[in-house]
Amino acid sequence: MILTVTLNTALDITYRVGALRPHTSHRVSDVTERPGGKGVNVARVLAALGHETTVAGFAGGGTGRAVRERLADTPGIRDALLTVTGPTRRTIAVVDELTGDTTQLNEPGPQIAPAEWGAFLDRYEELLGGASAVALCGSLPPGVPVGAYAGLIKAARSVGVPVLLDTSGEPLRRGVAARPDLAKPNADELAELTGSHDPARATQDARRRGARTVVASLGAHGLLALTPEGRWRATPPTREHGNPTGAGDSVVAGLLSGLVEQLPWPDRLTRAVALSAATVRAAAAGEFDRMAYEKLLGQVAVTGGPAAG
Amino acid sequence: MILTVTLNTALDITYRVGALRPHTSHRVSDVTERPGGKGVNVARVLAALGHETTVAGFAGGGTGRAVRERLADTPGIRDALLTVTGPTRRTIAVVDELTGDTTQLNEPGPQIAPAEWGAFLDRYEELLGGASAVALCGSLPPGVPVGAYAGLIKAARSVGVPVLLDTSGEPLRRGVAARPDLAKPNADELAELTGSHDPARATQDARRRGARTVVASLGAHGLLALTPEGRWRATPPTREHGNPTGAGDSVVAGLLSGLVEQLPWPDRLTRAVALSAATVRAAAAGEFDRMAYEKLLGQVAVTGGPAAG
Repeated sequence: MILTVTLNTALDITYRVGALRPHTSHRVSDVTERPGGKGVNVARVLAALGHETTVAGFAGGGTGRAVRERLADTPGIRDALLTVTGPTRRTIAVVDELTGDTTQLNEPGPQIAPAEWGAFLDRYEELLGGASAVALCGSLPPGVPVGAYAGLIKAARSVGVPVLLDTSGEPLRRGVAARPDLAKPNADELAELTGSHDPARATQDARRRGARTVVASLGAHGLLALTPEGRWRATPPTREHGNPTGAGDSVVAGLLSGLVEQLPWPDRLTRAVALSAATVRAAAAGEFDRMAYEKLLGQVAVTGGPAAG
Repeated sequence: MILTVTLNTALDITYRVGALRPHTSHRVSDVTERPGGKGVNVARVLAALGHETTVAGFAGGGTGRAVRERLADTPGIRDALLTVTGPTRRTIAVVDELTGDTTQLNEPGPQIAPAEWGAFLDRYEELLGGASAVALCGSLPPGVPVGAYAGLIKAARSVGVPVLLDTSGEPLRRGVAARPDLAKPNADELAELTGSHDPARATQDARRRGARTVVASLGAHGLLALTPEGRWRATPPTREHGNPTGAGDSVVAGLLSGLVEQLPWPDRLTRAVALSAATVRAAAAGEFDRMAYEKLLGQVAVTGGPAAG
């Protein structure tokens, strides 16, 4: 089983409107809802790839119930979310029907009480017992200590479970220092962590800070991977047009599934890039287009190799 | 008991953001939720004025549960909402913290099945038995026939319960033709109904179309009332600054409470204008500032009289 941790789960709501005009009133023509938060998105892709996946984190209130009802309908995902008092946050994506542009409104998330955080730590340690790998994904809700990921990484390493970190800001800084097996920052997160806007240099710096492997996701420029085994670059065939929501989460799912399947690095990166591009191309945000994925697998260009590692 | 009907109840959500910029991402700094829909807002004001009030209409899904949980916490309101399959809509008000301006996103509402509409009609007839007055408020959700208010007005009139109509568009047109005791359009609704932008003329036209009394709410210009007993104009002392959300619903509550208390028209209109201005002045959308209300009662100017009726 692969474990994904989403401390700040979300009910992701998408609204379609004619055009968003500030300070006016809008009739929403279409409403869709799905369970969200980065680790939940990762779990959905892992499940679609055939991996048994467990989702850990928090859920509360009516929005939390909505998240769990929808998770229960997703084959291959086991819900191990902990019920908390505060309501799970909503995220609202307002899509302009004409341009396809999206305006995002993200609630901060519930206040997590110290006892709730303590209960999560107990459950996490239990779940690690059955996990082949764990992904720690996304922002921290209020009340969770900023060093939370560092602690979760140490706990995974102490029982020999490979751990991937995908977050930003101070939680990323502290998490990287706790020596995760893999960190997957995007260009902005990498620049914020290292102070460098040169991806090659910043990726190297991030490894020096503690991450065993760093895979930087550079949007349309693909992935740059610095690993103990070598250095690779993987690039999609074309710049994809569509909704990039969830593309980074698909990269995480590709890397994590490749890790537990013990694929060579070029194959892991190919899978991650193909999944990411197929997610941008999908009609619904956070889904991936399976036909596109399978076609893209043969079109990703990988350069580099063990010698440069 | 006063009965208010809200066929398209809502979970009203307010977000505070620094400034709304289309096609960017926003962190919401503050989230508030309250039960909404015009008739629910009217009921809240009636209850605050000491009137026992029953809320009828539909509620469904997680949002419907949230509406009902909050209604249960409001003293003086009895929840007679009918549970339906489709989820109650959300409305999102995004308030710019700097300017105070609001951007509104309104979901369309649940699809009401024919059997659900039939069940509502049965419940409505039961509730009319104990009602001293009824208010029919707001938009119709999908599936409810466009002539719904006309039918509800006839049912109320047939058992001698005074009925107030506050809606817009075709439901207003058909409802007015069914001869409600009172219609309360705003300037836009009145112009759409009659084709005239002259409030005096349009109000007269609306009466000719069937409404026994028409009270037009003209925003900062107060109210214009054409009744069988006379014609009045009621004006607030100053233009209020604040959030006009719910101001029209407070007018309805003022008129309806004045009706069941058998106040003379000038007193009803004074109350309605004072409540409306005190709603604009309140910190939270849809609440009213009671201190301001009591002060404003002595400051509303009423002109006109029975002779002009």
